[in-house]
Amino acid sequence: MVLSGGLDSTVCSALAARDCDDVAAITFDYGQRHRVELDRAALVAQHYRADHLVVRIDASQWGGSALTDETIAVPDASAAGPGDGGGIPATYVPARNLIFLSVAMGVAEARDADAVYLGVNALDYSGYPDCRPEFVESFRATAALALKRGVEGRPVDIRTPLIDLSKAGIVRLGLELDAPLHLSWSCYHGGVSPCGRCDACALRAKGFAEAGVPDPALGFSPAEPADHAASTGQNG
Amino acid sequence: MVLSGGLDSTVCSALAARDCDDVAAITFDYGQRHRVELDRAALVAQHYRADHLVVRIDASQWGGSALTDETIAVPDASAAGPGDGGGIPATYVPARNLIFLSVAMGVAEARDADAVYLGVNALDYSGYPDCRPEFVESFRATAALALKRGVEGRPVDIRTPLIDLSKAGIVRLGLELDAPLHLSWSCYHGGVSPCGRCDACALRAKGFAEAGVPDPALGFSPAEPADHAASTGQNG
Repeated sequence: MVLSGGLDSTVCSALAARDCDDVAAITFDYGQRHRVELDRAALVAQHYRADHLVVRIDASQWGGSALTDETIAVPDASAAGPGDGGGIPATYVPARNLIFLSVAMGVAEARDADAVYLGVNALDYSGYPDCRPEFVESFRATAALALKRGVEGRPVDIRTPLIDLSKAGIVRLGLELDAPLHLSWSCYHGGVSPCGRCDACALRAKGFAEAGVPDPALGFSPAEPADHAASTGQNG
Repeated sequence: MVLSGGLDSTVCSALAARDCDDVAAITFDYGQRHRVELDRAALVAQHYRADHLVVRIDASQWGGSALTDETIAVPDASAAGPGDGGGIPATYVPARNLIFLSVAMGVAEARDADAVYLGVNALDYSGYPDCRPEFVESFRATAALALKRGVEGRPVDIRTPLIDLSKAGIVRLGLELDAPLHLSWSCYHGGVSPCGRCDACALRAKGFAEAGVPDPALGFSPAEPADHAASTGQNG
């Protein structure tokens, strides 16, 4: 499972952990501004006793995104609301899911895994083209052609169980599955607490508001910094 | 242009340098056994005065290939000859071109480049599924769906000008373009000189033999180790 440490990938991990005997989490350290999500991903992986692979690809080498280039500001959520026809925002990272899914397929093939789980969704989303079902479908066909497993007639499956859910639906599913939502981090900014203003914060707040529950991550800080640091060190 | 430092990517770089005003080379440091190709790639990039980006993705974290896992031996070329129906060899790296092309598309989009050049060929090749034209065609469609540039109706082009050439044809094209073939490195093993036994050496030797010219890389060693090391350090 691809695990960013965000809300969606945390709920997606809960599904993978429920449905699969053996799960491994892949987290990408890509030079993102909100590096705190890496620590949260480690905690979520630990929660599910998943083998945790932190793969480093320094996308700040080429930039082109507010998340990987310090000179591009993270915009506040638009007045129209996130994902509401505002076009592709500055937080879009060129080819991010293309790269992440490609690496995940390589890892899955090397470990002989049945499937890769990816927590994309295209309903309440930030307008990233690589979160759309048409991208995932096309990628599935391309990966089957690229991989030995595809040639052998047993392609690695790609599962995107959240793709048609609203943010509120994802929150509700997470609660139903007892997912550690308090550990997840969505804010595009780093720091100790979420900014409350960026697209990711706005979408998350909308989800919890519509689901009618408070966000358990607000005010959360990891309880055992020593253990936590050790775990991140091990995996990273 | 994706530049491994091998014969094919060196000739492909010659085409890119001939046809484009401004070229940048991307080389992947993926934990490959034959790290010497990274040094050769730096020399080829230098030859074409191309901006050289070395992107690190440590595929030895997951392995699954003789090129990234020290416990898997690099096989000698099969008696039937490389690429002659012997199946997919142990030197296949899971999802390699899927990952490389994905990163290259991200870099191309961030730099607003017109095209990515990739030196794959599917005639005299090692049987890797991700070198086949059907993979490249499918990837092109997927990338157009993943990238902002695709959504904007100006997808990043993917050019594979060697895909239908034989190895001898690639050698002849390289000579015609005055490509620095002496700098290129194909052998899957590291070391000072090519092993002469692996698939990559066998295919390369076949190409030069059929083209009727000696391989200028045999016996070549970089002339200026000090400059060379400095250049590699800058880029890597």
